[in-house]
Amino acid sequence: MKIAALQMQSVLADVSANLARIEHAAKEAASQGAALLIAPELAVTGYGAGEAMASLASPAGGEVEQRLGEIARTHSIAIVAGFAERDGNIVYNSALFVDDTGNSHIYRKSHLYGDYERGLFTAEKPTADVIDYRGITFGMLICYDVEFPENVRRLALAGAELVVVPTALPKGTSGSFIAQTLIRTRAFENQVHVAYVNHAGGDGAFDYAGLSCIASPDGRYLAQASEQSEALLYAEIEPDAYAQSREENTYLRDLIQNV
Amino acid sequence: MKIAALQMQSVLADVSANLARIEHAAKEAASQGAALLIAPELAVTGYGAGEAMASLASPAGGEVEQRLGEIARTHSIAIVAGFAERDGNIVYNSALFVDDTGNSHIYRKSHLYGDYERGLFTAEKPTADVIDYRGITFGMLICYDVEFPENVRRLALAGAELVVVPTALPKGTSGSFIAQTLIRTRAFENQVHVAYVNHAGGDGAFDYAGLSCIASPDGRYLAQASEQSEALLYAEIEPDAYAQSREENTYLRDLIQNV
Repeated sequence: MKIAALQMQSVLADVSANLARIEHAAKEAASQGAALLIAPELAVTGYGAGEAMASLASPAGGEVEQRLGEIARTHSIAIVAGFAERDGNIVYNSALFVDDTGNSHIYRKSHLYGDYERGLFTAEKPTADVIDYRGITFGMLICYDVEFPENVRRLALAGAELVVVPTALPKGTSGSFIAQTLIRTRAFENQVHVAYVNHAGGDGAFDYAGLSCIASPDGRYLAQASEQSEALLYAEIEPDAYAQSREENTYLRDLIQNV
Repeated sequence: MKIAALQMQSVLADVSANLARIEHAAKEAASQGAALLIAPELAVTGYGAGEAMASLASPAGGEVEQRLGEIARTHSIAIVAGFAERDGNIVYNSALFVDDTGNSHIYRKSHLYGDYERGLFTAEKPTADVIDYRGITFGMLICYDVEFPENVRRLALAGAELVVVPTALPKGTSGSFIAQTLIRTRAFENQVHVAYVNHAGGDGAFDYAGLSCIASPDGRYLAQASEQSEALLYAEIEPDAYAQSREENTYLRDLIQNV
């Protein structure tokens, strides 16, 4: 299955502009044969929308989900995109999966980072939900979640072959390390693919690290974006091609659990 | 605290030769001000000793421990070295810590790799033992153990500031990835130092990857050996120097446990 990762420069608090950007990428990715387009954390609202976030939040089945579902159907491609999700008075930092046949699933971030996120969102309990799509089993995490090995392990043990991670990784030494080293380790130590999809440039509130990447089970990059600009990356997700790597690195089989 | 890592070419099944090599390095490391010398997995017997392993195994408090204790006292330096440990009819793949005041501690490998190790050794249940030595709290793992994030996390949550890892990492693509990428991730994701100490060259049974390293909490190398030759690496272990990295990367504080 071919996937596409949209390293994106969101417009703060302009949902229409961001959905239009995602639609443009969906059309392009579908024309290249991709079956799934992934956009960054809070791509729909802009990560830095701050006090406007609550008013931009949309419920499951609401306007954002309807609009992304239309884009998926129009261009015959599934989409994962970060958005602010309203559930009554609660706002989650969520990622929505929609495909072109009407399937959808929402993942809510479990590990919020820093005062900014904790001031805007409620954390959800970690889950092990995985989704089967066109022969690939995948799970979702958001940004800081993937920096905890426990979260990727949980999905891998639930059968994920691909972990899809919308992110909003800030520029800096730690950011570069996470994108360039930690993400490849997450792929290797679980023998899964990881698609890590970041913002680029600045949105007036934060500066982002770019460096979106798609890593393979052997710890290599199948695709990597620059630090600076928007980009649309592609990679083929082919778990069967990594049989030798799984044969040498039998972590899921050898792990001693519940110590 | 200054530590020294001995990337070593062991002599198969020649305990005297290997202890002499460790003593030579202990003398050199002490003269450079190091307070701890680390030798590889099964440094005392040679990793590839195979069928001879059981007859070379020595019990806690036995000849190997006495001899390493003498070396520590003679040169005023603590030592961690891998050896085959006998306990009745059971043989463990163990690492011994001895210091120059008579303290000692044994760690037994919990995650054995492949048919070779499983044919020679019994695995121990994972533990969270940590040791206080000259103001630094450290824990021990052996080779394959460190490739599981769960094992380093357990020690970090128990207070380890340094994880000492004798290893026998074979040459190859996976080996290079583990030494060059995974080890730095283990340091970063727990904000600890990791000393990963390998064999170099071949011993007639296996060819090793070299690439011993000492990684810091910010994911950088403080020291790294080549792929080929023996080497004696040094690094200062200064947890207080990484306050900013810990402030940005608050994994131990933010982890949601027992999910």
